[in-house]
Amino acid sequence: SQSELMESGPSGVFAASLTPMTADLEIDHKRLMAHGHWLLANGCDGLAPLGTTGEANSLSVDERMAVLDAYGQSDIPGDCLIPGVGSCAIPDAVRLIRRCLEMGAAGCLMLPPFYYKGVSDDGLFAAFSETIQRVGDSKLRLYLYNFPQQVGFPLSQELVTRLVKAYPDTVVGMKDSSGDWDNMAATLKNNPGFRLLPGSEEFLLKGLRAGAVGCISATVNVTAALSGAVFTAWQHDGNAKQVDALQDRLTAARKAFAGPPVIPALKGFLAAESGDTAWLPCRPPNMALSAADVAALQDRLKQAGFRLSSLPQAA
Amino acid sequence: SQSELMESGPSGVFAASLTPMTADLEIDHKRLMAHGHWLLANGCDGLAPLGTTGEANSLSVDERMAVLDAYGQSDIPGDCLIPGVGSCAIPDAVRLIRRCLEMGAAGCLMLPPFYYKGVSDDGLFAAFSETIQRVGDSKLRLYLYNFPQQVGFPLSQELVTRLVKAYPDTVVGMKDSSGDWDNMAATLKNNPGFRLLPGSEEFLLKGLRAGAVGCISATVNVTAALSGAVFTAWQHDGNAKQVDALQDRLTAARKAFAGPPVIPALKGFLAAESGDTAWLPCRPPNMALSAADVAALQDRLKQAGFRLSSLPQAA
Repeated sequence: SQSELMESGPSGVFAASLTPMTADLEIDHKRLMAHGHWLLANGCDGLAPLGTTGEANSLSVDERMAVLDAYGQSDIPGDCLIPGVGSCAIPDAVRLIRRCLEMGAAGCLMLPPFYYKGVSDDGLFAAFSETIQRVGDSKLRLYLYNFPQQVGFPLSQELVTRLVKAYPDTVVGMKDSSGDWDNMAATLKNNPGFRLLPGSEEFLLKGLRAGAVGCISATVNVTAALSGAVFTAWQHDGNAKQVDALQDRLTAARKAFAGPPVIPALKGFLAAESGDTAWLPCRPPNMALSAADVAALQDRLKQAGFRLSSLPQAA
Repeated sequence: SQSELMESGPSGVFAASLTPMTADLEIDHKRLMAHGHWLLANGCDGLAPLGTTGEANSLSVDERMAVLDAYGQSDIPGDCLIPGVGSCAIPDAVRLIRRCLEMGAAGCLMLPPFYYKGVSDDGLFAAFSETIQRVGDSKLRLYLYNFPQQVGFPLSQELVTRLVKAYPDTVVGMKDSSGDWDNMAATLKNNPGFRLLPGSEEFLLKGLRAGAVGCISATVNVTAALSGAVFTAWQHDGNAKQVDALQDRLTAARKAFAGPPVIPALKGFLAAESGDTAWLPCRPPNMALSAADVAALQDRLKQAGFRLSSLPQAA
């Protein structure tokens, strides 16, 4: 049943949490932890650090290890963490996964190797399989990460089902950032008991009603409270009309982010709302939005009836 | 003049050299060096190891550093090496570039950060610029690497010219693997004295006649002798008809490789021709070709009138 699925692993609303950067483009660890605590205190059930939104792919493996260590040494429980471990190179993914297991993370979110295009499903299966076998730890809970817009190709239904069948206790779920509901519905249908998490809170309620276990989303860095309200209301009475009304408000907020690159948009919005310009830096190729673009974003969110439930704390 | 351009840096035929792998998918260093020597003895003016063809993006940074160290300790002169240093993360590119400078490599071949899509030219300029400034070494000679088919976006003419103007002594050239001759011609026109190297020997003679300094190509791992013959003939008498005849033979061989993924095709061809199956392994997501696909490739190359000038030596 879905309640059993919910209880058997991480579920609910996950922020693909931002990585604050200093003015010289190094990780701002103090602010990183403050942001994590703020998200968990304001509607998030968990965090997915070191994903696309966390600029993980602009960080060296050593920098990513340092972020994992910081979480491991914090009071944030490992069972609400699904860190990103996706890498082009198998040895890098293996190192990151081992550290996640050491720190007790609930799961690992893994992109396919994303440089080479035109590779076969056999090649992608071999990449995931080789990684799992090199890690060689039955505690591993792997969440595939389908993001064709950044990766350049999707994870096919055939590949996902093949991985689930080969590693039923390890390949337990997927974040699907394709935005393609039909693909998400097919994944749920083809893989009973699979922990699907849509990559946008736009699909939070629709997903939950179809068997998903929550969502992992970039914009939850801002919409955490409203996203959490949808999840809580759904848990209370999944078919109540007020749940749909909350989801409609959430969807409007999410859609207000459309247009500018999402990482600088989120950082710019948090900077503008909090008056704390230390939020602004992104590591290239991501670049801070102009003040005008941030103001336009604030205006669109206001038009969508959205406001932050609380201001992020200064680090 | 073009002869001054040729003399002022690496020029001629470069193999984007393969990285042999052991059966357990580790780098086969002994075979790697034997292949480098074979290429240089059979028509190559230089090597571009750790590029796309070298499976660099399936190697960890530490593995790439080990390959650089192996070249540094070999008798292959640094002035005929243009190693790949492209990385998604700036600190990784900086580490690799510093090692290339320590070992005296003639240049570094650098992809843009390739995970994030939809990034601006400002963001890409900042990524290259931040890398160059962190390295902070006037000896750096950077070759941009334009490969939209793998990266997901091209390096625009505006970006290239902006980088050349900002760093005229550092951003000295480009490997263009787009296959788009009009883009290569525009690059030569827009950036006088720029060291352009088409990413395919199909454009070797056309490029040389238009001001390019050679080529860097995957298939030169097989066509080195014939590619070298075109370059030598062009140096002797660039407009002679026999140069065109040699280029036509070379182009036919290059085109015979169309179809299967090029890295396993090259490894499979070398394995089949030499009878040495240790050539076959690729690190996932790249996968060895089937015997039937290799046989079909051998047949296409035979039809194109191509044969290896010498067999690769056993390691």
